[in-house]
Amino acid sequence: MTKARVVIENITPQVDCGRFPVKRTVGEPVTVEADVFADGHDMVACVLLYRAQDAEEWQRAPMTSMGNDRWYARFVPRELGQYEYTVSAWVDHLATWRRDLAKKEAAGQDVRVDLLRGKQLEKQGIDEDIVVRYEPPLRVEVDREKARFSTWYELFPRSAGKPGVHGTFADVEARLQYVASMGFDVLYLPPIHPIGFTERKAPNNKPGAGRSDPGSPWAIGGEGGGHKGIHPQLGTLADFKRLVARAHELGIEIALDIAFQSSPDHPYVREHPEWFLKRPDGTIQYAENPPKKYQDIYPFHFETQEWRELWEELKSVFTFWIAHGVRVFRVDNPHTKPFPMWQWIIAEVKREHPDVLFLSEAFTRPKVMYRLAKLGFTQSYTYFTWRNTKRELIEYFTELTKPPVSDFFRPNLWPNTPDILPEFLQFGGRPAAALRLVLAATLGASYGIYGPAFELAESKPREPGSEEYLDSEKYQLRTWQLDRSDSLHELIARVNRIRRENPALQNNRGLRFHPVDNESLIAYSKTTEDGTDSVLTIVNLDPHNRHTGWIELELASVGVESTKPFQVHDLLSGARFLWQGARNFIALDPTYTPAHIFRIRRRVRTEHDFDYFM
Amino acid sequence: MTKARVVIENITPQVDCGRFPVKRTVGEPVTVEADVFADGHDMVACVLLYRAQDAEEWQRAPMTSMGNDRWYARFVPRELGQYEYTVSAWVDHLATWRRDLAKKEAAGQDVRVDLLRGKQLEKQGIDEDIVVRYEPPLRVEVDREKARFSTWYELFPRSAGKPGVHGTFADVEARLQYVASMGFDVLYLPPIHPIGFTERKAPNNKPGAGRSDPGSPWAIGGEGGGHKGIHPQLGTLADFKRLVARAHELGIEIALDIAFQSSPDHPYVREHPEWFLKRPDGTIQYAENPPKKYQDIYPFHFETQEWRELWEELKSVFTFWIAHGVRVFRVDNPHTKPFPMWQWIIAEVKREHPDVLFLSEAFTRPKVMYRLAKLGFTQSYTYFTWRNTKRELIEYFTELTKPPVSDFFRPNLWPNTPDILPEFLQFGGRPAAALRLVLAATLGASYGIYGPAFELAESKPREPGSEEYLDSEKYQLRTWQLDRSDSLHELIARVNRIRRENPALQNNRGLRFHPVDNESLIAYSKTTEDGTDSVLTIVNLDPHNRHTGWIELELASVGVESTKPFQVHDLLSGARFLWQGARNFIALDPTYTPAHIFRIRRRVRTEHDFDYFM
Repeated sequence: MTKARVVIENITPQVDCGRFPVKRTVGEPVTVEADVFADGHDMVACVLLYRAQDAEEWQRAPMTSMGNDRWYARFVPRELGQYEYTVSAWVDHLATWRRDLAKKEAAGQDVRVDLLRGKQLEKQGIDEDIVVRYEPPLRVEVDREKARFSTWYELFPRSAGKPGVHGTFADVEARLQYVASMGFDVLYLPPIHPIGFTERKAPNNKPGAGRSDPGSPWAIGGEGGGHKGIHPQLGTLADFKRLVARAHELGIEIALDIAFQSSPDHPYVREHPEWFLKRPDGTIQYAENPPKKYQDIYPFHFETQEWRELWEELKSVFTFWIAHGVRVFRVDNPHTKPFPMWQWIIAEVKREHPDVLFLSEAFTRPKVMYRLAKLGFTQSYTYFTWRNTKRELIEYFTELTKPPVSDFFRPNLWPNTPDILPEFLQFGGRPAAALRLVLAATLGASYGIYGPAFELAESKPREPGSEEYLDSEKYQLRTWQLDRSDSLHELIARVNRIRRENPALQNNRGLRFHPVDNESLIAYSKTTEDGTDSVLTIVNLDPHNRHTGWIELELASVGVESTKPFQVHDLLSGARFLWQGARNFIALDPTYTPAHIFRIRRRVRTEHDFDYFM
Repeated sequence: MTKARVVIENITPQVDCGRFPVKRTVGEPVTVEADVFADGHDMVACVLLYRAQDAEEWQRAPMTSMGNDRWYARFVPRELGQYEYTVSAWVDHLATWRRDLAKKEAAGQDVRVDLLRGKQLEKQGIDEDIVVRYEPPLRVEVDREKARFSTWYELFPRSAGKPGVHGTFADVEARLQYVASMGFDVLYLPPIHPIGFTERKAPNNKPGAGRSDPGSPWAIGGEGGGHKGIHPQLGTLADFKRLVARAHELGIEIALDIAFQSSPDHPYVREHPEWFLKRPDGTIQYAENPPKKYQDIYPFHFETQEWRELWEELKSVFTFWIAHGVRVFRVDNPHTKPFPMWQWIIAEVKREHPDVLFLSEAFTRPKVMYRLAKLGFTQSYTYFTWRNTKRELIEYFTELTKPPVSDFFRPNLWPNTPDILPEFLQFGGRPAAALRLVLAATLGASYGIYGPAFELAESKPREPGSEEYLDSEKYQLRTWQLDRSDSLHELIARVNRIRRENPALQNNRGLRFHPVDNESLIAYSKTTEDGTDSVLTIVNLDPHNRHTGWIELELASVGVESTKPFQVHDLLSGARFLWQGARNFIALDPTYTPAHIFRIRRRVRTEHDFDYFM
């Protein structure tokens, strides 16, 4: 029982009733809203309370009424780690008194007694027992900026060497300049650990590999060690550390692929047979997706009695590589390992290293993908890979960029991966790759490509109907001719520079779609919260045909007045156009360019800007 | 830390993250849904757990997959009071094994080892530590049927007597047959307590009442007592109890109006001055809405130091009348009293008397109205009183009849009240009253009218622009000619009989709007959950003109096949029509009838039904 009369309800943002933290990055404002009201007609006051999780004192920000009993305030987290926030409110007797006094005075009433009452209230102050605080506080996980805005490039070190020779970390070092020239800031390597020999796969995932076949990097563990070892053909730990340092100099972070599974030759199999499921015939259970069998992979048996020791060991894989300079991990198939383990590992790692990022490579059912994000993964793979039509893209990106999803799920968009050569890229040629690149880079504040297959528009599947690459680097070395004249290298470099120069593209929060009267043309804008940067992207989704159409721009959302002309500056081509009003004409020919990426410049110069006008 | 791999998320129904119970009535199913899934490809199993709050054992209902990791099950509460429910889930190793075995057998694989594994799993059973239960459990408040389906009539006992003579409970007894003949099952009386003399209001809310003016029943408390007393001109407590008993024989419950405020003559003012706010000049603070003053009303000062004693006393007002046979209360302006007090009083009362119903008379801001419903009010007044156009009605009733609102807020629709003569009724005459009656009775499983003003289509406001009745019974006696030929008595009786005979109209859950190509015609259906009853109502919202239009019926929602004719039976006129397909023609002339209330009869007789056909 309490006599406190004020109510606090429906605080946003919150994820699953506060069970999980909201996600933000350092310097990114957290705008908190709440329904706050009391019985009767008394006025209420409320403040936002927030603090870094280890701080004792709450910081306070007064909240502003938005009408309909809704209030808001914001705070800007300045440190990595978790923050708490909540709302405190009370009936504001003094403000109520002031409001009523003004009405009575306006009506010419005798207010002598009211003035005495005001003195009483002033003396009284805010009585503790009429103040309500919403409990428990909500949480926000504050990551570094790269969690929100990152540009990934994936390559197989094995193919970075001279033709026919197994590539090394030194070869990757030599490739760094190429990667940096395209503007990527994360270089992600498939697993770098020793590869098993037992049941090793030959090229194109066929059985019966010979001793010279390199095998799949995901068949982890062999004579040279397991998840903390380095594949001898790539080099040494010292070589790896030098690669990390060199990349750092070029503004690139090395991301490692953590795949928690073992080849039959992994040291774990001998040292910890209790971490694997033993079949009734005494053999170890290999991976299955009946009727398919993957005898080269032993999954962990996470329901083992010794699950605590197993979790500790897997956590130590992360801390081992963190100790050697890695801060970004792409986690392979996290959806086939227990959710509570990820929640525990990520929390444990981030407690010591709040700057570490985890990318969830879960291509699975939507609720499973979202759950992994809620329990701690920093970024997540998405269905973008298979979303090609205007309707699909609008539907999916509306879902991803609005609460509740946008509060916990950070999409990382991949037009291709070593596992996925989508049909769209198989049949659309270079224009298809170009338009998918622009979509990924402008719809997603984070995106990545698997190269050089991507920039060279590699398009042959293993067999018709397959979405796997023919002669995939997963099972063999490849030689790539990086300086081919039809490489998308330059387009990628330009698009990534546009991303770096336009804060609007570094966040997904300001995404808005605009109607175009042609199903093959998609238009969307991104605008920063403060309105200072606004980028309008228009993409021709058809890689084969020129399309024209009229865009119906939602002017207010890009900060433009309908009565004044404004300039749209195509950052891809350099061309500038003067537009006025919502309706404007668009024509895009995929043989020349996949898209316009317009920076909207609101202020157009007129005679008033001419020096001698006044 | 737990090794349990299954996740339970997003259970519905739930109100504000489980802070408040969902509302249902005895026998009304609770359909519970949840997202349930595990990592990987293993199958999961889940059960709904539920129990009456004081039961020790959980009842179990297996849940069924709906696809996309969503599961459902239902239970039917059979007792009054609160129930708890939650979901329990686990990875179903045996089911997974069976599924995989079938696939391997279909592929002709050797399954000898798999069969041994199955034996192991069977022996093992469900390991306790892989089972997850969602905590804390959610709650449902189970009321009696009248909470969901009720038909209210309000009258002033003061006007029930002979012309010019103050009416008594005995006069109300004599009026019961009239009320019953119209099919009402709740008769609600404005406050029946002694009325104060100090600052008493004269007719039409003017100051300066004479000793012969009856005053407002809401100025509670005088020489004859306070909230537990009876106004001497109405009779005695024994008379009241006889009225309650006689009403009961006719299937009518007497509802009392509980208005927590005092006239200056209330015994509380002398006996408990500490329950009122003393102004600096020593006088007691009267009610104000600056610059308006209501010197005849003293509000309670709920922030008094003695608030606990005040709450106890107010609670005892309910228990006093419960002891004298009352089970239904209409609470006056609950939004001007503290929310936590209502939560406490209603919980306390219902713990002893779970059959008691509380109607919240809060015409205020939406979040305040919803909060009162969440914290315990059984039913609530709504904005229906001012929703007249098709668009307004569709928007508002879509909100009211869908979760989350429908899970905690039970609308009670009033076309008029003693305080509100809406403009629509002032200018639309009898046809306006008729159509508002049909809307209220078919849109709302619960509705009420203030009579005889309503059935006699009383339409004069106190002054132009006012929504108050001229010569309101709040301040004077009125004489009503009940047998006037233009009374809506018969229409009301017919509509209420239709309500009683059609379960579809006794619930708001099955409401669905259907397009009509005329803004003055609104069409909606209600269908029972089991599909056995479906009522389609079409109302002409224009009281002045005949309108015609084409309805586009969503056939599947009313259980009709597009290829077969079906019968619509107008329960108002008795007429029957054969329709086929979605598009059908409607014509409604307000001078004859305000509406069609069609029962949809799916099965139309054909030659196959003829006895000798075979």
